[in-house]
Amino acid sequence: MIVLFTDFGMGGPYVGQVHAVLAQQAPVEQIIDLFHEVPRHDIRAAAYLLPAYMQGFPPGTVFICVVDPGVGSERRALMVKADHRWYVGPDNGLMHILARRARELECYEIRWRPASLSASFHGRDLFAPVAAQLVRGLMPDSVMAAMTPPVPEWPEDLPQVLYIDHFGNAITGLRAERIGHDVRLRTGGKELACARTFSEVPAGQGFWYENANGLVEIAVNQARACDQLGIAVGDCVGV
Amino acid sequence: MIVLFTDFGMGGPYVGQVHAVLAQQAPVEQIIDLFHEVPRHDIRAAAYLLPAYMQGFPPGTVFICVVDPGVGSERRALMVKADHRWYVGPDNGLMHILARRARELECYEIRWRPASLSASFHGRDLFAPVAAQLVRGLMPDSVMAAMTPPVPEWPEDLPQVLYIDHFGNAITGLRAERIGHDVRLRTGGKELACARTFSEVPAGQGFWYENANGLVEIAVNQARACDQLGIAVGDCVGV
Amino acid sequence: MIVLFTDFGMGGPYVGQVHAVLAQQAPVEQIIDLFHEVPRHDIRAAAYLLPAYMQGFPPGTVFICVVDPGVGSERRALMVKADHRWYVGPDNGLMHILARRARELECYEIRWRPASLSASFHGRDLFAPVAAQLVRGLMPDSVMAAMTPPVPEWPEDLPQVLYIDHFGNAITGLRAERIGHDVRLRTGGKELACARTFSEVPAGQGFWYENANGLVEIAVNQARACDQLGIAVGDCVGV
Repeated sequence: MIVLFTDFGMGGPYVGQVHAVLAQQAPVEQIIDLFHEVPRHDIRAAAYLLPAYMQGFPPGTVFICVVDPGVGSERRALMVKADHRWYVGPDNGLMHILARRARELECYEIRWRPASLSASFHGRDLFAPVAAQLVRGLMPDSVMAAMTPPVPEWPEDLPQVLYIDHFGNAITGLRAERIGHDVRLRTGGKELACARTFSEVPAGQGFWYENANGLVEIAVNQARACDQLGIAVGDCVGV
Repeated sequence: MIVLFTDFGMGGPYVGQVHAVLAQQAPVEQIIDLFHEVPRHDIRAAAYLLPAYMQGFPPGTVFICVVDPGVGSERRALMVKADHRWYVGPDNGLMHILARRARELECYEIRWRPASLSASFHGRDLFAPVAAQLVRGLMPDSVMAAMTPPVPEWPEDLPQVLYIDHFGNAITGLRAERIGHDVRLRTGGKELACARTFSEVPAGQGFWYENANGLVEIAVNQARACDQLGIAVGDCVGV
Repeated sequence: MIVLFTDFGMGGPYVGQVHAVLAQQAPVEQIIDLFHEVPRHDIRAAAYLLPAYMQGFPPGTVFICVVDPGVGSERRALMVKADHRWYVGPDNGLMHILARRARELECYEIRWRPASLSASFHGRDLFAPVAAQLVRGLMPDSVMAAMTPPVPEWPEDLPQVLYIDHFGNAITGLRAERIGHDVRLRTGGKELACARTFSEVPAGQGFWYENANGLVEIAVNQARACDQLGIAVGDCVGV
């Protein structure tokens, strides 16, 4: 199974071109479009979303992870094997939190390059072919690379809004199990209590809950939390 | 074949997580993303869209239908077999119109629960695994449930705008064959005649037509009807 | 392999219905959603995007190309075989640039019609079934049609903004190899130099580059070019 985790957006030509490469180089493999609206160019936000949303995939899954504002520069290309799954993408911090939380970890710099490599679309030209090799059990030309966290001062959890979903809910970089369910959350001058589910709170009232991937998520019953509470991506969340 | 009909939106992590479950539990099955922009939380609107858009699928198709604002509450989970197709989702009225129009109908309450069930994402945790069982011919643990229409006063057809599509056309809950093609439609203070197709009317002129799924749809030739006629989801349509 | 290139948008019911037909009529075939946000109804813009984005697909690939404001009128249906790939869609100019640039070209009018043909959705009812036949090596009932460019005065390249992508970059109808990389571009009163990649220019500065499909694309490092430079679809670009 190959899983795509990118900031490419849907509808445009980027996701389809990656699929086209995989269809030719890994034709019998299942391809999952997990997330294509990771905040654009925001490596740190994506780094905290990735470990939450990679849950539930079987051993051997290969993730193509692309949030890559430095594409075409000298940034390295990385393959990470973490707890029996592979992650392929730029060495820009995107896999840093995932790697930090892994129990078993191997990191490799990808030295292999395709015959034709564009300056701006390594997801299609480099990472997809590498994923197609990995999922077939092949090992592209690579050298072991010590995992050097590019921004080592990044916190364990990120107390910020990382993503506003289709329902207007605000997904944060906080793991609910780390802060506990008794805690009140502060954001935008408001204090929010925890609830288990939407129907526990009156319509129109804000709350936070542990979402289905373990992250703290801010919501309003029967309304869009982003509008009702005035929340935007990047807002700080206090515990 | 498994078909997804939801209000999840595209691009975010919800559709992909359902696909990931199906890829593991029904790996050889074809999965179709039919509709992921059903109006958010609007069970009634979705209930009138579902019977129109489920047309054309073969016998044995399993639909995962999720518009589920009450997820995590005591609302029941439902499997409906209607005219040789299965529909899996919440028992909140979403399958009411479909069931009412069916010639053959069986309804079951789903009592089976997975080992791990989140409070907010039954599409992934409950309905997808049930669909994977049904499509393989297995019958999850269930009890027959009498289909008790939760909102029995719902009309035969819904004279409202249910969805504005990518072209700005307004799809209603009226079946064209029920009102006939001679009828003029009233919405937002305007009267619209029927046309068979766009090129029959002058550029910039509003009209209604029977769309490719049998519903009354309001359009403007070479323009966005929603902008040009000032139409929004929820607007009433008079016959 | 069957590839979809349309202005249907994602999330709504159109893409899924085409997939449903293909799943039934070409069940073992790989289906790629290449582009579903081609500018709505803009045949000419789509005609210049198609040859750039069809690159990289293997011989025998069948493209379903639908930008079809005249659907339901007397416009003909077309199958084009260009350089060992098939293109199926309306005969409205959409395949004109592709055909003009082909080394080997055959054009056929599609006379075959399905038992049930809606007035507004030939992508689902006509082009998808034809594509399913072509990809299996069958030839739908058809007659040779001389390719008569419907708008013969269209230029070799189109010096306009055709598409704003998810990152806010502006894709034009100019091929970079035709204008060369020394040229400065003028748009909206600004002059832009060429760069190879984003990281070559300071943050906030506009530039143009040859995108991964060979087209001239206007961008701003670490910002949305469409907002920063005030660029919109349809804007002229001077060389």
